[in-house]
Amino acid sequence: MAINKLTITLFLLISLAFSHCLAFRVEVQEFEPPQQEGQQGPGGGSSEGWDEEATNPYHFGQQSFKNFFQSQEGFVKMLPKFTKRSSTLFRGIENYRFLFQEMEPNTFLVPHHLDADYVFIVVQGKGLIGFVKDTASESFQITKGDVVRVPSTVTHFFANTNSTVPLRLAKIAVPANVPGHFQVFFPAHSQFHQSYFTGFSKDVLTASFNVPEELLGGLIRGPQQGQGIMRRVSPDQIKELTKHATSPSNKDKDKKDKHKDRSTFMSPFNLLTQDAIYSNKFGHYHEAHPKRFSQLQDLGIAVGWVNMTQGSLFLPQFNSETTFVTFVENGCARFEMASPYTFQGDQQQQPWFGPGQEEETEEEMGGQVHKIVSRVCKGEVFILPAGHPFAILSQDQNFVAVGFGIHASNSNRTFLAGQDNMLSNLNTVATRLSFGLGSKMAEKLFTSQNYSHFAPTTPSHQFPEKPKPAFQSIFNLAGF
Amino acid sequence: MAINKLTITLFLLISLAFSHCLAFRVEVQEFEPPQQEGQQGPGGGSSEGWDEEATNPYHFGQQSFKNFFQSQEGFVKMLPKFTKRSSTLFRGIENYRFLFQEMEPNTFLVPHHLDADYVFIVVQGKGLIGFVKDTASESFQITKGDVVRVPSTVTHFFANTNSTVPLRLAKIAVPANVPGHFQVFFPAHSQFHQSYFTGFSKDVLTASFNVPEELLGGLIRGPQQGQGIMRRVSPDQIKELTKHATSPSNKDKDKKDKHKDRSTFMSPFNLLTQDAIYSNKFGHYHEAHPKRFSQLQDLGIAVGWVNMTQGSLFLPQFNSETTFVTFVENGCARFEMASPYTFQGDQQQQPWFGPGQEEETEEEMGGQVHKIVSRVCKGEVFILPAGHPFAILSQDQNFVAVGFGIHASNSNRTFLAGQDNMLSNLNTVATRLSFGLGSKMAEKLFTSQNYSHFAPTTPSHQFPEKPKPAFQSIFNLAGF
Amino acid sequence: MAINKLTITLFLLISLAFSHCLAFRVEVQEFEPPQQEGQQGPGGGSSEGWDEEATNPYHFGQQSFKNFFQSQEGFVKMLPKFTKRSSTLFRGIENYRFLFQEMEPNTFLVPHHLDADYVFIVVQGKGLIGFVKDTASESFQITKGDVVRVPSTVTHFFANTNSTVPLRLAKIAVPANVPGHFQVFFPAHSQFHQSYFTGFSKDVLTASFNVPEELLGGLIRGPQQGQGIMRRVSPDQIKELTKHATSPSNKDKDKKDKHKDRSTFMSPFNLLTQDAIYSNKFGHYHEAHPKRFSQLQDLGIAVGWVNMTQGSLFLPQFNSETTFVTFVENGCARFEMASPYTFQGDQQQQPWFGPGQEEETEEEMGGQVHKIVSRVCKGEVFILPAGHPFAILSQDQNFVAVGFGIHASNSNRTFLAGQDNMLSNLNTVATRLSFGLGSKMAEKLFTSQNYSHFAPTTPSHQFPEKPKPAFQSIFNLAGF
Repeated sequence: MAINKLTITLFLLISLAFSHCLAFRVEVQEFEPPQQEGQQGPGGGSSEGWDEEATNPYHFGQQSFKNFFQSQEGFVKMLPKFTKRSSTLFRGIENYRFLFQEMEPNTFLVPHHLDADYVFIVVQGKGLIGFVKDTASESFQITKGDVVRVPSTVTHFFANTNSTVPLRLAKIAVPANVPGHFQVFFPAHSQFHQSYFTGFSKDVLTASFNVPEELLGGLIRGPQQGQGIMRRVSPDQIKELTKHATSPSNKDKDKKDKHKDRSTFMSPFNLLTQDAIYSNKFGHYHEAHPKRFSQLQDLGIAVGWVNMTQGSLFLPQFNSETTFVTFVENGCARFEMASPYTFQGDQQQQPWFGPGQEEETEEEMGGQVHKIVSRVCKGEVFILPAGHPFAILSQDQNFVAVGFGIHASNSNRTFLAGQDNMLSNLNTVATRLSFGLGSKMAEKLFTSQNYSHFAPTTPSHQFPEKPKPAFQSIFNLAGF
Repeated sequence: MAINKLTITLFLLISLAFSHCLAFRVEVQEFEPPQQEGQQGPGGGSSEGWDEEATNPYHFGQQSFKNFFQSQEGFVKMLPKFTKRSSTLFRGIENYRFLFQEMEPNTFLVPHHLDADYVFIVVQGKGLIGFVKDTASESFQITKGDVVRVPSTVTHFFANTNSTVPLRLAKIAVPANVPGHFQVFFPAHSQFHQSYFTGFSKDVLTASFNVPEELLGGLIRGPQQGQGIMRRVSPDQIKELTKHATSPSNKDKDKKDKHKDRSTFMSPFNLLTQDAIYSNKFGHYHEAHPKRFSQLQDLGIAVGWVNMTQGSLFLPQFNSETTFVTFVENGCARFEMASPYTFQGDQQQQPWFGPGQEEETEEEMGGQVHKIVSRVCKGEVFILPAGHPFAILSQDQNFVAVGFGIHASNSNRTFLAGQDNMLSNLNTVATRLSFGLGSKMAEKLFTSQNYSHFAPTTPSHQFPEKPKPAFQSIFNLAGF
Repeated sequence: MAINKLTITLFLLISLAFSHCLAFRVEVQEFEPPQQEGQQGPGGGSSEGWDEEATNPYHFGQQSFKNFFQSQEGFVKMLPKFTKRSSTLFRGIENYRFLFQEMEPNTFLVPHHLDADYVFIVVQGKGLIGFVKDTASESFQITKGDVVRVPSTVTHFFANTNSTVPLRLAKIAVPANVPGHFQVFFPAHSQFHQSYFTGFSKDVLTASFNVPEELLGGLIRGPQQGQGIMRRVSPDQIKELTKHATSPSNKDKDKKDKHKDRSTFMSPFNLLTQDAIYSNKFGHYHEAHPKRFSQLQDLGIAVGWVNMTQGSLFLPQFNSETTFVTFVENGCARFEMASPYTFQGDQQQQPWFGPGQEEETEEEMGGQVHKIVSRVCKGEVFILPAGHPFAILSQDQNFVAVGFGIHASNSNRTFLAGQDNMLSNLNTVATRLSFGLGSKMAEKLFTSQNYSHFAPTTPSHQFPEKPKPAFQSIFNLAGF
């Protein structure tokens, strides 16, 4: 036993010495962007002149988005189908699409419907959403933190009712007809989007509306030839629109709810006024779970909001069944993740598993763990797949991100560090058999962290300034 | 404001003038089959010598069907997997197969089971279905409008008990093993279909049945070498078969229901004796919803039956989540639909998105709306995808069609015209912002139709006789 | 009528005479391995030197397995994705993976989690499973017949606590992230499998655990450089591990169940102490149905255990919706199945439908039935697809097999022979119309077997020793 311990200690020292220098090399290479180029990205939302996306399939920079619509009044942009990046890694979330919508102050987005259900959260600004149903119309005032479920094919419009702040919405859509694909349908015509009434013959339209042909032009084309789907509105119109809107708090339920289920179903709720499920001085995490909110129930989608103070750490953890699609609203963070998958990160043509490559990558039973590291900043998206341990470090300012948790209905979260960490419950003999540590060392390892969920990062672990090696993939096996 | 209105009106007039002539051109081309050929299709069920299917993915003419079985006693035919036509458009209904079965008077279809659940509706005739279970056998008399759920692998047989009228059944199948594919299993041998006992060795069969080998021949081959799965039956046999059958109305529930759930589950109900959900002098629409009928519940399939008088219009509408597979039982109709998808309708080899083409067609955010128009007649099928606005115009006689609504459990229907039209609920300022109409004009547009759901088509909107242009795709962007 | 009967009888005799000799030829070819080679497989679990797998897609011999891990302490092996063998036949079970785990006496399998749910059954031996949760740790003693549900991402370890008998587990896994694919995550390092903490930077780890860097080495590497994930344990360690374990029977529920649902969810139950659902002197069949056991409910997986005496027959039957993945634990059996699918069994490169070949095989409406016959032995797997009639004959010793039934929630089983056989309920006229037999003959055929579910095979049906023909596919159409 004594000899054994001696051997262990010796080996431990040697391996630590070795891992020490190697570890730093890896980190340097990971976190030292090529400074000689010295170019910052355009605006605060960039990834600071350093695009690592070419080797990290879980990170979607701003250039990954495609514009669905863009004008001076705002934009709607969308990430490609996740399976376009990797048909293997993202098959489980193939039928989900991430969108981001920004409307300038005092603008209106014309009524439309999607052949998709979606959920959005207001990440900034104030406005309203109007639902147009066959029995009635109902508008809700929306503000930062409000979560709204928009059911498939319900016609709705938006307005930014604020005169100074843009209205920013993060959305996750679940297509109804074609997995991963949806379409937007507009009853009214605009510059780049035809009215769906264009799909009908004139005789069908005149018979349908029982009006002379002359009136149809207004329906099909409208006079605003030059206007896009987002339009400037006057303060008077804002006033009139707002007059009809209910704010989530002052909603007079008794009067309106002829169709109770449906109404509740589409009523916004505010995520930030819910109690945070994790909270200390380093960070807060709010989560709306599909089991608690009827709006999210049938989609099985959770919505999370994390706010971390500068230099904090969201402790290592994993979700049991949920894959989170996470959008950064403020600041930058480093996200780190352990992945058992191998990526062909250096092949320019086919950076990750494309369709058809799946077969070769299936039986990966090599037992290697790959270090996935990315710096993610405002306007970018990163994916946290189920079962994969990850951690998030906020950087030089407050870090705010919202996440949509897919397949969340029966999912839970396991922390690997902090007071509630799972491994501290491993019994002594199993710990010793697994980690080969004396029980006291194991106790120390799994019990020294007094904080839960969020913890400080100590200054001793800053990244030293070292020259970056010529080229090395971020996906080197972690070589401790 | 005044100037604005003037501009609007001027523009409206100009654009209407333009759209007027163009619209007619489009319609002419759409509805003028090449009359110079002058050939009608064989019988009333044809598409009248004019096959537009090459350019309309939502329309399946009679030649699209494949024969599963055909003899003098009747036939069973089936549409190919919908994804064979378009893997993109029809991925959501990939696992559903449409079948049509017709049995001549006084015929019997031998017992069989499918590795698929299915639902059928009797569109014409009278007969019976017999279920053979391990505890008992149960037969039901079936007649026009009866809907029956046949669970996967339940052995059953059919008879047309009428001596003059064919028995016609429309079916939708949901395969259990292989998405979109199923097999039919017969315990008895017939001319073109082997008994599944053929799959066992003789020693297994003799041991299983504990009979001498000589008896097995009857099991495996049977004496009816020349007989197909549909067989003529004598009036005596009809009498004997019917003797055992329960008609849905006179069913003695207390006596039979040892296995209540299962029995109810497979009991026919008549759709046409249910109250019509939409009804006026122009048409009736009956619908069995999966939430109300336990037979349809787990499959989430709705069954609809529409009956329109000559020259009527089923007003523009869309379903929120349901895609309807619709079979025409009588007459002809024009169906019109607005689609945001682009079709490569003029490529002969690959008329629509085939497998592997999906990638290119994904990010269609062009905002164009395409006019889908088809004349559909008796024996043909058309698809109404969720979220897509469509309208149906009956032609020169009564139009009768049945539809199977897929993913119907939480779906609802929105009308875009008629008294209950959704757009009439858009508030004044939103209407003006969207359509650019004065509130009075908008009111006129959305409130002039006094009928709901079904409306007349006025004679002024008949199609003028004009020469057809040499060639033009039906999928021209609607060029109003 | 008299003439008719004569013709029938004559034809029956002729066809029987013909079928007689052909049937034997087929059987000979099927069950006579090339004895001239005279080589037995290594150990009792081989398929006796005769590999028929090349022509039977439903049979997976031992060489089909891939090693996930193998050492002197034991192994974990896994079948490839079923769709790798046939994308058509096995698409319905694409997301299920079969694994087999064997641990030598006195061994420990280190803690790990999968991004997959799984269910296992102990087919041999005694041991324990330990679950490590964020609130507590809980260990259960497991023994032959115990069924355990391991939820996705729950950390757990195993031990074989017996000093002489290997612990053998059959497992079915349901991946959570990527359909059909899962990964294994280890918190501790071993020879071939890295700790998932290797995925994090050193600064994240020191901040997370709030420990000096020196302690991390133990976490990341551990001292057991040469040890695999399975490790020898001393009798003292076994004692200590067992001390913490609850056996299913003596579990003190009141004390432990702080988290009742979760605990019950993961509690083992013993399948063999449940009443057998079919039982006589020829065999027993136990089944745990997902509707009765909360552990299996959400996965919809049934677990079955069949034990047949030498020379017995599990009567012809089919499952309505369940496909069974069956693992042989003892002895050999012949399984026979009727299939309407055609297999390209003699093409060496692509023995069955590969991806992309589906289209051609779809519309198989030829009505032929193919005889699927295989000899399956200890350590092998065979698949029983829903709706397909099959029978199992035990051979020269007791036959024991366990099966995982996929999509079992609403499935039921229909027997085609024996006292409860479904066809005996077909009424007289339908029987005569279908089988062309006089009602007395039919009665004899379907009522002569007095046993239910299991029956004897008579000695007269042994396979005669005949020379094997040069080559003939096992997939000949059964040529009776």
